[in-house]
Amino acid sequence: MTSADDDTGLLAPGWAGSPAAAETADAAFLRALLDAETALTRAQAALGLVPDEAVAAVTEAAAPGRFDLASLAERARGGGNPVIPLVADLTRAVGEPYGPFVHRGATSQDIMDTATMLVAARTLDPVLADLGRTERALAGLAAEHRDTPMPGRTLTQHAVPTTFGLKAAGWRSLVLDARDRVTAVRGSLPVQLGGAAGTLAAFTAYGADDATALTAAYARELGLRAPLLPWHTLRTPVADLAGCLAFTAGALGKLAADVLTLSRTEIAEVSEGSGGGSSAMPHKANPVRSTLIAAAARRAPQLAATLYGALAAEDERPAGAWHAEWEPLRDLLRLVGGTARDAAELTEGLRVHPDAMRDHLGLTHGLIVSERLSAELAPVLGRARAKELLTEAAERTRAEDRSLADLLAEEPELTDVDLGEPTDPARYTGSAGVLTDRALERR
Amino acid sequence: MTSADDDTGLLAPGWAGSPAAAETADAAFLRALLDAETALTRAQAALGLVPDEAVAAVTEAAAPGRFDLASLAERARGGGNPVIPLVADLTRAVGEPYGPFVHRGATSQDIMDTATMLVAARTLDPVLADLGRTERALAGLAAEHRDTPMPGRTLTQHAVPTTFGLKAAGWRSLVLDARDRVTAVRGSLPVQLGGAAGTLAAFTAYGADDATALTAAYARELGLRAPLLPWHTLRTPVADLAGCLAFTAGALGKLAADVLTLSRTEIAEVSEGSGGGSSAMPHKANPVRSTLIAAAARRAPQLAATLYGALAAEDERPAGAWHAEWEPLRDLLRLVGGTARDAAELTEGLRVHPDAMRDHLGLTHGLIVSERLSAELAPVLGRARAKELLTEAAERTRAEDRSLADLLAEEPELTDVDLGEPTDPARYTGSAGVLTDRALERR
Amino acid sequence: MTSADDDTGLLAPGWAGSPAAAETADAAFLRALLDAETALTRAQAALGLVPDEAVAAVTEAAAPGRFDLASLAERARGGGNPVIPLVADLTRAVGEPYGPFVHRGATSQDIMDTATMLVAARTLDPVLADLGRTERALAGLAAEHRDTPMPGRTLTQHAVPTTFGLKAAGWRSLVLDARDRVTAVRGSLPVQLGGAAGTLAAFTAYGADDATALTAAYARELGLRAPLLPWHTLRTPVADLAGCLAFTAGALGKLAADVLTLSRTEIAEVSEGSGGGSSAMPHKANPVRSTLIAAAARRAPQLAATLYGALAAEDERPAGAWHAEWEPLRDLLRLVGGTARDAAELTEGLRVHPDAMRDHLGLTHGLIVSERLSAELAPVLGRARAKELLTEAAERTRAEDRSLADLLAEEPELTDVDLGEPTDPARYTGSAGVLTDRALERR
Amino acid sequence: MTSADDDTGLLAPGWAGSPAAAETADAAFLRALLDAETALTRAQAALGLVPDEAVAAVTEAAAPGRFDLASLAERARGGGNPVIPLVADLTRAVGEPYGPFVHRGATSQDIMDTATMLVAARTLDPVLADLGRTERALAGLAAEHRDTPMPGRTLTQHAVPTTFGLKAAGWRSLVLDARDRVTAVRGSLPVQLGGAAGTLAAFTAYGADDATALTAAYARELGLRAPLLPWHTLRTPVADLAGCLAFTAGALGKLAADVLTLSRTEIAEVSEGSGGGSSAMPHKANPVRSTLIAAAARRAPQLAATLYGALAAEDERPAGAWHAEWEPLRDLLRLVGGTARDAAELTEGLRVHPDAMRDHLGLTHGLIVSERLSAELAPVLGRARAKELLTEAAERTRAEDRSLADLLAEEPELTDVDLGEPTDPARYTGSAGVLTDRALERR
Repeated sequence: MTSADDDTGLLAPGWAGSPAAAETADAAFLRALLDAETALTRAQAALGLVPDEAVAAVTEAAAPGRFDLASLAERARGGGNPVIPLVADLTRAVGEPYGPFVHRGATSQDIMDTATMLVAARTLDPVLADLGRTERALAGLAAEHRDTPMPGRTLTQHAVPTTFGLKAAGWRSLVLDARDRVTAVRGSLPVQLGGAAGTLAAFTAYGADDATALTAAYARELGLRAPLLPWHTLRTPVADLAGCLAFTAGALGKLAADVLTLSRTEIAEVSEGSGGGSSAMPHKANPVRSTLIAAAARRAPQLAATLYGALAAEDERPAGAWHAEWEPLRDLLRLVGGTARDAAELTEGLRVHPDAMRDHLGLTHGLIVSERLSAELAPVLGRARAKELLTEAAERTRAEDRSLADLLAEEPELTDVDLGEPTDPARYTGSAGVLTDRALERR
Repeated sequence: MTSADDDTGLLAPGWAGSPAAAETADAAFLRALLDAETALTRAQAALGLVPDEAVAAVTEAAAPGRFDLASLAERARGGGNPVIPLVADLTRAVGEPYGPFVHRGATSQDIMDTATMLVAARTLDPVLADLGRTERALAGLAAEHRDTPMPGRTLTQHAVPTTFGLKAAGWRSLVLDARDRVTAVRGSLPVQLGGAAGTLAAFTAYGADDATALTAAYARELGLRAPLLPWHTLRTPVADLAGCLAFTAGALGKLAADVLTLSRTEIAEVSEGSGGGSSAMPHKANPVRSTLIAAAARRAPQLAATLYGALAAEDERPAGAWHAEWEPLRDLLRLVGGTARDAAELTEGLRVHPDAMRDHLGLTHGLIVSERLSAELAPVLGRARAKELLTEAAERTRAEDRSLADLLAEEPELTDVDLGEPTDPARYTGSAGVLTDRALERR
Repeated sequence: MTSADDDTGLLAPGWAGSPAAAETADAAFLRALLDAETALTRAQAALGLVPDEAVAAVTEAAAPGRFDLASLAERARGGGNPVIPLVADLTRAVGEPYGPFVHRGATSQDIMDTATMLVAARTLDPVLADLGRTERALAGLAAEHRDTPMPGRTLTQHAVPTTFGLKAAGWRSLVLDARDRVTAVRGSLPVQLGGAAGTLAAFTAYGADDATALTAAYARELGLRAPLLPWHTLRTPVADLAGCLAFTAGALGKLAADVLTLSRTEIAEVSEGSGGGSSAMPHKANPVRSTLIAAAARRAPQLAATLYGALAAEDERPAGAWHAEWEPLRDLLRLVGGTARDAAELTEGLRVHPDAMRDHLGLTHGLIVSERLSAELAPVLGRARAKELLTEAAERTRAEDRSLADLLAEEPELTDVDLGEPTDPARYTGSAGVLTDRALERR
Repeated sequence: MTSADDDTGLLAPGWAGSPAAAETADAAFLRALLDAETALTRAQAALGLVPDEAVAAVTEAAAPGRFDLASLAERARGGGNPVIPLVADLTRAVGEPYGPFVHRGATSQDIMDTATMLVAARTLDPVLADLGRTERALAGLAAEHRDTPMPGRTLTQHAVPTTFGLKAAGWRSLVLDARDRVTAVRGSLPVQLGGAAGTLAAFTAYGADDATALTAAYARELGLRAPLLPWHTLRTPVADLAGCLAFTAGALGKLAADVLTLSRTEIAEVSEGSGGGSSAMPHKANPVRSTLIAAAARRAPQLAATLYGALAAEDERPAGAWHAEWEPLRDLLRLVGGTARDAAELTEGLRVHPDAMRDHLGLTHGLIVSERLSAELAPVLGRARAKELLTEAAERTRAEDRSLADLLAEEPELTDVDLGEPTDPARYTGSAGVLTDRALERR
């Protein structure tokens, strides 16, 4: 049962029900906030600053089920962040005598930022798994269709032939680029620890000889990196997330843009494994996975822009720039998480129609290989005559609805020239095969 | 009790708990979707296309409590939007013989877009109310402080004096600009009705003589406007919402930027009525309302950009551009709704400190009126000499830590000049009072 | 001859050479800045604050050719805006005794903002003219093709038939929406006059009894509106420009998106009048006008976002928000100016291929009218049987490569049913004609 | 002399006259386009595909001075990019017999993209130099002010003390992050070579056995990287530039935001070395460098968003997404180039005012150390009593305008407690010194 103000993904077919949805929900943030609090107490205990009994008490009290999300959300208004009421509730739950050890020496931002990094880490793991599925599916398609010719299209028009293998290899190379960028950022996510203004002063006041050792211990507890400096207003980790997530959305957006084009009723060179239907129109099989990926690719850049914009944060904690990060970063994580899932399903289920591809190679009456004929006939006829002859033939193909190969075969000047291969679009795919092989060697 | 994947506003102190939060939650969208469906049935009945019994059956079945939001969200993945599973559930709930009248002739987008306009209308009403509260509070401040002098600041530095009244009148004029833009858009929100591809064909197939009359009846049922054309891919209403909402966020963002500056510990010319506290630092009274408004102002432009970008939508329903609108539009509505609430609270509770303002007028040793002295001494001394004398005096103010008025009083050349008024910053506020009066006449 | 650091549009085929290019170049801004300066002197003379000889002297000195743009640009660094060195140069050019009347009482922002509004006004005029050409061309297309049937497409797939007339009428309605929004903003562009901090104080110091009368005189001189308040940090005029320009780019972007789709080699239902060629591929006729419009539509929303973001401007002149407006606003004006030109050329030259449209109506073997058949056969056969029969037939169309009409004609149950009209896609265009007529009545 | 439609930086004090301005002007792009063309001819000659005489002829003809930028810009409209007219002009300039070797086998995008990467490389080099200057200046400031205490500020209010050394070290760490990201991208910039649709087919038709060897040779000629695949629609290099440039703008934007705050008339803890003046207000010394950096930081994220959005590019060359990259990428390069210059000047000239910092530590009557007193008095008095006493004292500081230290010194309970150190804000800087040292070890 969902309460009146809750969201559960009704407007979000792109990410509802995905692993990223679960890892970025309010409940997941609550869990991460509590993980951050308990880890801080444990880290202080590891340095002898807090009694072990306090660790036990805080850990026991920090069961997410005890906390009321809606109440926390409402009370977050007062101070402008949810950590303030959470610390109050957690301290009360711990009670005396260990309540005072909750959050000791920390500032709200230490907990909020650390929790956000935990959420990011937990979301990026399934994202990376889905990118892995996607690249493997694409590797299979690229290998299978290494030599499947199809029209290469530029500015919406047939240009010269290419292969579906090269196209799939290109999609895969973007997925690998995304994987590499996400992996690097995933491995660099830091804890946040600085205290009220980033000097770690309160920890020293509470007895730490070397407060930077506390940061290291905190990071160990949570499996995150220990940063060189507190980063309350040095937002590199958030900007790096923005960059790799916007890149991933765009990389998958390229794949989606192509599938949408190739799925058009008139083109139908590929189709999604399970198209979305329509009750009133039984013939429709909509490319829904691509549609949802394309929608995410339209949104991600602007979300990243907000996060890049938040780099310009004044003081030791800014009045607004920090608060502006929370929802856009979550939105990006979710969108990319849902999109990676959709991309995996899309590529694993994609149906390829080589016959349609081959048929379309003929749509320009063979002019799709005119570039090659220019190159090959020039040495035979001289450049000027070759160009003249091809221009005439090109005009006649349309006027007479005949193929360039047929027309050229009638040219007396070309009687001795073997036009079979040069006029076959399927044999003008250049280095497509070699490039596909090379690209598939990348792991 | 909130389920695992729900959001309830934990990351959103800027809008959680606001009227806009309630009006834009998944539950509110569900209600609006059902309102759109039942209104469509009623409109068809009004034209005699559907039996009255069907209206009763559909209306009864369309009780929001019957529907499972999480399930709808999950099943929305299949076809890419939540209307498809909702229509299935609603049809089943109506049962035979009236189930077939559910959604008859419509397409998912008709319902989704209409529901979105309903949600927008329901959210803009409290937004307008809060803008009204805000402008009234600002009118009060402007009138009260019509003649309260304070430093005018440009590029962070004192320039010449201004008044707090003029400042408040300026804030108010932006709020009125926002109100006017929101009001215009609120009054223009249309229903959507076009059928599968915007031709209203199915309604004709089901017996409508003039399907455009159905659109008019539909609009009457819902209190929205009847559009000239179906707007499946003519997204003016969404773009207009984007524009007025981004404007409102920015207009309130100006107010917040000023309050944040004027609240600084060193400036303290205003303070929020109830600043947010800090457990460890009892002296802190953070300008939280302004902070949250500032955060919204950082996000809104990029959300609007996504919506403006969605104008470029191909075909009779685009594959992605439409789907990319839903969450950003809701986010904008929420952000602006929460921000309008915060602005009302902020302005109604704002405390103004005229003494601090007056003290600060002296911070530049009186140089804040040097512009005036240049103008007034030139006729007396000649331009060249006036400039020379003022430049010397300006340097001495800093070196000797004395006021410009004192230094000039010692100048033999100025013995006969009454320097009292020209050196008083409080009397160099130009037309500030007149401008404030004029601005307050605007209603 | 262009100097080393100049731009002349090499990267901008979308706007180079357009009226907007000329009206927004540095030289045009220089002219507008000088117009603003001379108008201010004239306005002061009209109020008797400045001798008429000064007007003559300033006007004569303010010949744009006297000023060195590159030098002004370089010296603008010092104070952060180009007005400071311009005023210095202009004052020197006027010389004694009237030099001191140059810029008297004004602040740099008064001149910069006023010049920007002049540039906007001068650019919007040709934009409106080109939008007018575009809407007239589209009105012609809509009327001519009122009854030209074509496939309606949703999520890239054929849905139900529509008409090209309705499509063109839809494009036109967006162009009219853009025209209306641009016209409203064009009529509201204000002069800026406030002096150092928006109080008009210096004008009073220089003798104005009612400085607000000066604003009115200034506006009259320039043919712009007199604002209620100085708007140094009340940036409604800039935001309004952002909104109407982003809207226009998107509105034309919709047209371009459709033309690009319909121009695809496989679809070829329309083609641009003069497609861009390729030296190596004589068959290519690229939809270049649409491509450049589409590129502009991708950029405009983010430029507008920067301008909306600049609303949140602190103090009486912000340190950055104002400076961040100049180039994005110019970019928007240019982009939209170039885009409007391209749209006019595109629509005036668009070639429509009704035969291709009609052919494509058959691509789904007649399933494109299944929605209608569901509606029409249900009363004859009962809903359940009608659905069953249509589902079977739909599957057979693909398997047997036969049309739905042929298959249904063989059904014994339908012997007495006239299937001619219901199976003809060209006769299932619903209210497309009526809607087109209605839309064309809008002027 | 600048022609009517040229821009020379009048609206761009942030980058006019900078190295980046020169490296990104139209003339610089023309040079890069010609470099790309000649390198392609040389690379083909290196593989024996083109006679050496052709190399000489093309190289001689490709003198930038021969080409008319304005004419190229205007003719670029026809095909939508400037390479088409440039190749025509260059071919004509080479003449017979070597003209045909110009651009042989290439597509416009090969040249345009390669030239863009050259321009990026040439712009990033001075950017990196200026980032180096900036980080060295900041290292000096951090070391010099390692122990200079100042108020730490959060949400605009004093929180606890920090040091200016730590602040400067934080700014430097962002600059180093930017340097690292820019350096990585600078080293990865690839040539583009793919031919009409990315298969390198024409090069094979012209005799290349292994066309991928040509890519390697091409890269060697230009000092760029050889990509694994042609990246016509795999836009990782552009997205990576977007990311590192947006990051750099934001990183410097943090520095600027702080300098702007600390420069305020009321704060005056730092001042720019050479503030921008005002003719009418001799006391003004505006923080112009920071202002221009702040303006760039407001614009860069949205420019990057457009580039990330262009990743979703359909086909083998998209109709719009590619064209939408050119100006925003140049704008980003320029903005960041100008910003890096301003940051170097700003940090090298920054004046720091430790006395003002120390004075401000007293503004809260000593409450700035209340966090420490809470921690230190609790063991002495018990937590409850300590809190009570501090709360009372805090209220009295304001009411009586006395310092916390004085009030506590009068408390009988604290007679034996040495309050000297705990109440001295300058001695509550926690690990600021250690953190500064650590941060300075990073190179």
